[in-house]
Amino acid sequence: MSNIPKIVILGAGYGGILTAQRLQKELNYNEADVTLVNRHDYHYITTHLHMPAAGTDSIENTRVPISRLIDEFKVDLVKSSVQEIRPQEKKIILEDGTLSYDYLVIALGGESESFGIPGLAEHALTIRSINSVRLIRKHIEYQFALYKNEKNPQERINFVVGGAGFSGIEFVAELADRIPQLCKEYDVDPNLVNIYNVEAAPTALPGFAPELVDYAMDVLRRKGVTFKIGVAIKECTASGVLLATGEEIKAATVVWTGGIRGNHMIEAAGFETARGRVKVDEYLHAPGHENIFIIGDNALIMNPEGRPYPPTAQIAMQQGVCCAHNIVTSIRNQQPKKFVFSNKGTVASLGKGEGIAVVGGKHLKGWTAAQLKKVVDMRYLFTIGGIPLVLKKGRFL
Amino acid sequence: MSNIPKIVILGAGYGGILTAQRLQKELNYNEADVTLVNRHDYHYITTHLHMPAAGTDSIENTRVPISRLIDEFKVDLVKSSVQEIRPQEKKIILEDGTLSYDYLVIALGGESESFGIPGLAEHALTIRSINSVRLIRKHIEYQFALYKNEKNPQERINFVVGGAGFSGIEFVAELADRIPQLCKEYDVDPNLVNIYNVEAAPTALPGFAPELVDYAMDVLRRKGVTFKIGVAIKECTASGVLLATGEEIKAATVVWTGGIRGNHMIEAAGFETARGRVKVDEYLHAPGHENIFIIGDNALIMNPEGRPYPPTAQIAMQQGVCCAHNIVTSIRNQQPKKFVFSNKGTVASLGKGEGIAVVGGKHLKGWTAAQLKKVVDMRYLFTIGGIPLVLKKGRFL
Repeated sequence: MSNIPKIVILGAGYGGILTAQRLQKELNYNEADVTLVNRHDYHYITTHLHMPAAGTDSIENTRVPISRLIDEFKVDLVKSSVQEIRPQEKKIILEDGTLSYDYLVIALGGESESFGIPGLAEHALTIRSINSVRLIRKHIEYQFALYKNEKNPQERINFVVGGAGFSGIEFVAELADRIPQLCKEYDVDPNLVNIYNVEAAPTALPGFAPELVDYAMDVLRRKGVTFKIGVAIKECTASGVLLATGEEIKAATVVWTGGIRGNHMIEAAGFETARGRVKVDEYLHAPGHENIFIIGDNALIMNPEGRPYPPTAQIAMQQGVCCAHNIVTSIRNQQPKKFVFSNKGTVASLGKGEGIAVVGGKHLKGWTAAQLKKVVDMRYLFTIGGIPLVLKKGRFL
Repeated sequence: MSNIPKIVILGAGYGGILTAQRLQKELNYNEADVTLVNRHDYHYITTHLHMPAAGTDSIENTRVPISRLIDEFKVDLVKSSVQEIRPQEKKIILEDGTLSYDYLVIALGGESESFGIPGLAEHALTIRSINSVRLIRKHIEYQFALYKNEKNPQERINFVVGGAGFSGIEFVAELADRIPQLCKEYDVDPNLVNIYNVEAAPTALPGFAPELVDYAMDVLRRKGVTFKIGVAIKECTASGVLLATGEEIKAATVVWTGGIRGNHMIEAAGFETARGRVKVDEYLHAPGHENIFIIGDNALIMNPEGRPYPPTAQIAMQQGVCCAHNIVTSIRNQQPKKFVFSNKGTVASLGKGEGIAVVGGKHLKGWTAAQLKKVVDMRYLFTIGGIPLVLKKGRFL
């Protein structure tokens, strides 16, 4: 037992990694013990997952060993899966042990939200982790291989992507880029392949200006995507999807990108949540817990207009920095800082050489936006790993 | 209608390609019309299929466009699937047309023989074509991806190979070489993966000297293969195999290499067959049909000891040469040549840097045999496509 405060960070995503890195920088020697818990020994770049999922980039460009990002003399790494959070006991139950804490940072990331659509959890694939996108990639390739060995059933080369939000559109774009390669590799006529993008909301890419949405949809239509906007998925089955219109799309591959909710462990821990997310205070504290910070997909924060900020990498990183600062000030009995989100802009990739972006109120399209996306990716690599990581994982083409 | 005799070759495997190439060389201008019918527009190197199946080499190194091998001014190519052979009408029914012939060469290749084992045709994969090995490769990768997304069920990473003959052993060796790469790629502990090679016969690699068989099995055991020799597969199910011993091996992947039989279309055409193969005369004629030649996997030829030669690439190629010659002599009213098999030796690969070989009565093992295998592969590429093909497809490592 020591008197040194123990800080435990759950999750090594954007929020968790930034918290850990800031703590290791700001804390003095022997000022606190920091433990970072993560289920894998690698950090992955969630905003990049749509590429390895479609097969247009490698898995290895999408993950980094945590040991490269953290100074293991300053931060302990525990590779384990969190089972339970017990705020009353200040304890974390891992699959293979327990941890106690004085300060806790919950940065566990969200979970796929299926909105109660029957069959989705069983039959649809989701873009949420290295393992899940590797499955999507292999599933797609496997369908092509099966197509050529069975009696060429159309459902093998029909692809349904549920959700035309940010992730849905970015994935659809990559998939459309990958199909011609797959067709060449498997000797399949590209005209036979169908990609459907189904979205229940009245528009694709909510939050973007209509002009940019139209541009994005035009780009994707030219790449062969068929949109079904304003059409809900009623049911997902082993052989495809049933739409609210009554139409059935036969497809052996359904990828669901329709939404994200907070982690179920947060509700289980007794926090009050909305869709699994906790309304944190302006210092990122969980309500009633000065020693617990919730950041990233699990934190609910309102913008000045009173609507929640969507969960993004950008906000999670800024929260990580703020939360690390507020832990340090708490240890030092100093004043904490309020979290203020600073919007650096938004870029959506539309596949090779295409994109849309909103930066400082300006709208960008096409090649410029695509380049900007790469700059954002590389800036992130630089932030967490410096120039060596940019050189190792950055894409310069 | 012309008076020029029409030669139709069914199949562009070893026998068919060699027949076509020899005919285009030996025939004079306007002496005959040659048509080569094949289901794909490529020729594939069957003896190499175990590598792309396991994923240790690419599909593209295993196939060659037929147009590169044949002079299309001299030989017509028809890409179609043969449905029926009608010797009485001298007609071939294709999936999309018909062809008539004066001379017919049946070089359609064999089919997988399941010896009536229940479930094998439904659940086991086979190494028989580009499409089927692409499926094996993708199936294996998909199991690893599923393993990481399900609750790590052992059957996903158990692999059963039925048959320890030539193809079974060569595939098992490549698979054993591939597993460590797959484990690295998918973050799986290699010690958890099992490869079982099950053979009903009392020995692996029948036809090889016991000394070489022992050597081969030792090499493969060291690579992690578990042998079940003298044990029959009683049934193949969706979840694995049941052995005659009562043991059950749970495995999502069963690859059957246990045997080959002649093509069902040959029996359907009314020829007398044994396991689908036709006992041809010494000139390679089908019995009673001076204008029909049967070569390769569908021809049954006895060795001087009265036992059938096993179907190999080597014998098919020699038959192709002989059959082309005998068609030319028939057109010219000259004497045909008897087919005599000249055994150039046998080499089995045991994966990277390992092999066994019998050449001119000598036994070779290890690195020397592995090099010899490459020489044989390259000699074949040279035979059918000259130096350009060796440079394009040859493996020099």
